[in-house]
Amino acid sequence: MPGWIPKDTLHFSPEDRAFLEPHLPPRDGSTPKPDLPFTTLTFATSLDSSLSLSPGVPTAISGPQSKAMTHYLRSRHDGILVGVGTAVADNPSLNCRIAGVGGYGSPGFDGQPRPIVVDPSARWDFTEESKLFQLCREQRGRAPWIVTALADPPAEKKALLEKYGGCYVHMDIQATDTGSHRLDWHELLVVLKRRGLRSVMIEGGAQVINSLLEPRYKSDIDMAIVTIAPTWLGQGGVVVSPQRRFDDAGTAVAAVRLANPKWYPFGEDVVLCAQIKQD
Amino acid sequence: MPGWIPKDTLHFSPEDRAFLEPHLPPRDGSTPKPDLPFTTLTFATSLDSSLSLSPGVPTAISGPQSKAMTHYLRSRHDGILVGVGTAVADNPSLNCRIAGVGGYGSPGFDGQPRPIVVDPSARWDFTEESKLFQLCREQRGRAPWIVTALADPPAEKKALLEKYGGCYVHMDIQATDTGSHRLDWHELLVVLKRRGLRSVMIEGGAQVINSLLEPRYKSDIDMAIVTIAPTWLGQGGVVVSPQRRFDDAGTAVAAVRLANPKWYPFGEDVVLCAQIKQD
Ligand SMILES: NC(=O)c1ccc[n+]([C@@H]2O[C@H](COP(=O)([O-])OP(=O)(O)OC[C@H]3O[C@@H](n4cnc5c(N)ncnc54)[C@H](OP(=O)(O)O)[C@@H]3O)[C@@H](O)[C@H]2O)c1
Ligand SMILES: NC(=O)c1ccc[n+]([C@@H]2O[C@H](COP(=O)([O-])OP(=O)(O)OC[C@H]3O[C@@H](n4cnc5c(N)ncnc54)[C@H](OP(=O)(O)O)[C@@H]3O)[C@@H](O)[C@H]2O)c1
Repeated sequence: MPGWIPKDTLHFSPEDRAFLEPHLPPRDGSTPKPDLPFTTLTFATSLDSSLSLSPGVPTAISGPQSKAMTHYLRSRHDGILVGVGTAVADNPSLNCRIAGVGGYGSPGFDGQPRPIVVDPSARWDFTEESKLFQLCREQRGRAPWIVTALADPPAEKKALLEKYGGCYVHMDIQATDTGSHRLDWHELLVVLKRRGLRSVMIEGGAQVINSLLEPRYKSDIDMAIVTIAPTWLGQGGVVVSPQRRFDDAGTAVAAVRLANPKWYPFGEDVVLCAQIKQD
Repeated sequence: MPGWIPKDTLHFSPEDRAFLEPHLPPRDGSTPKPDLPFTTLTFATSLDSSLSLSPGVPTAISGPQSKAMTHYLRSRHDGILVGVGTAVADNPSLNCRIAGVGGYGSPGFDGQPRPIVVDPSARWDFTEESKLFQLCREQRGRAPWIVTALADPPAEKKALLEKYGGCYVHMDIQATDTGSHRLDWHELLVVLKRRGLRSVMIEGGAQVINSLLEPRYKSDIDMAIVTIAPTWLGQGGVVVSPQRRFDDAGTAVAAVRLANPKWYPFGEDVVLCAQIKQD
């Protein structure tokens, strides 16, 4: 493996790295808060805030440069998290293909983030043939941790996961009246830090992001890095838009404001880096 | 009046003008197509593509610099168009307050665009006290043209309009089964050009923009200038997102792609200038 560089290896220039640097987790692995990882929210949308045309329809939104950026960001985080909706729809790789990381020019797993899939009912039907495990076999990605509310996940899937070095992570997750799950994100982030992840990037999909943009989690997110492409996908897409918020008088107000926004034109897209406003 | 400069006069720096210049109607009043005005689509949205929290809730989305930009854009267009939804919700001024235009440092109406309100059933209940007519009295804005399907609009409103130099513009406008109106935008633009407007900027609201972003009008729009603010307004806003589009095989595709996109970070916001992709 070492020495052999896969054809799909991506490159991200030093100039482009420079603009991102102030927005990334500290290189020394320190964290702003001792019990939490440095947490980055990052995804690519259309002008009408869609992540994709519909779940299961792979949608190329952003350009090739933004794709390389995503992989560079992955190399700078210990973990990358998605919801089970994304795992089921996309059969994603969730690895890092930037030149120089483990499997892409180096031996071992250095620079390969830990994939984390939030799957409350353990409904993701992965197999040996899922892309993630193919990459594990090729030593080009780590095995996932799957966050679930099931105390006793299916034995066969558990065995497959553990064979590759992954595992189920059990958490108490509230279910709402309508059967949907409401994870306590703060609690999950504490668990991930305790398991050794000093930085986590949360990539989507829309349900995950919308729930993380609720007011109660605003102090848990250190950075938002949003790529916007010059396209309207149109009505009916998978839309990032947090729940409506009201002030004490019951008047609708902006759901989430950002602080210190920096915009970087990037290929045909623009990249927004900002913190969540805390007041 | 001349010599006296109102307190709400806005300023827009030469550097900022320079970045916009390549995206504006030609200064000599020529138009890319002889029978159409140079047509600019321009509005400000949140990250989740909302123009406002809801119709009737004035929502400050973009920053002060973007506001000055909008007024500069107005000084560079002969007409500015909005839907009746905006007229009813906002009681808008629809004038230009950039230093140096008529009413803001100069005599006459030079640099003051013609307001155009699309109001198929003439339901906008303006009075002498509507902001637009106040500004007319102060010689700080022109009287509106109101585009309507009514052959015979209410006499009282007609008289008020004409007193200030405005008028109703009658057009055949299709009504759909559900009672909503479907103007032929191309036809309206031809009418406006014939009436002497060499450039028109279309500011909103969402219904107007979404209908203009339908494929059939893509060759009628010369430029899109979209300001995006670093805020998510949240679900339930007045959203710009065109109708879903399908290819010949029935597969969903991006509704509108843009060509030659240029992004300009501007205060806390970003400004996107681009053409509509024609293929
Ligand atoms: N453009 C991009 O950058 C990008 C990035 C990622 C994904 N995507 C796209 O996004 C789409 C998928 O998005 P999606 O919104 O459908 O799915 P998703 O957010 O990936 O996953 C949704 C599922 O995750 C679980 N979940 C989400 N939030 C939760 C919470 N607060 N507590 C507990 N469980 C939670 C729920 O599982 P249960 O239903 O089992 O409870 C939920 O159904 C795909 O089309 C994908 O391609 C795009
Ligand atoms: N952020 C910004 O840059 C910006 C700019 C402008 C407006 N806004 C906001 O947008 C909101 C209003 O938007 P809106 O979508 O509710 O209203 P709108 O688009 O301003 O007006 C909608 C009305 O205009 C007529 N209309 C629209 N499209 C038509 C078509 N294709 N053919 C014929 N008639 C058509 C219809 O009148 P009938 O129903 O009578 O048929 C329709 O109800 C307000 O809150 C305003 O503040 C924001």
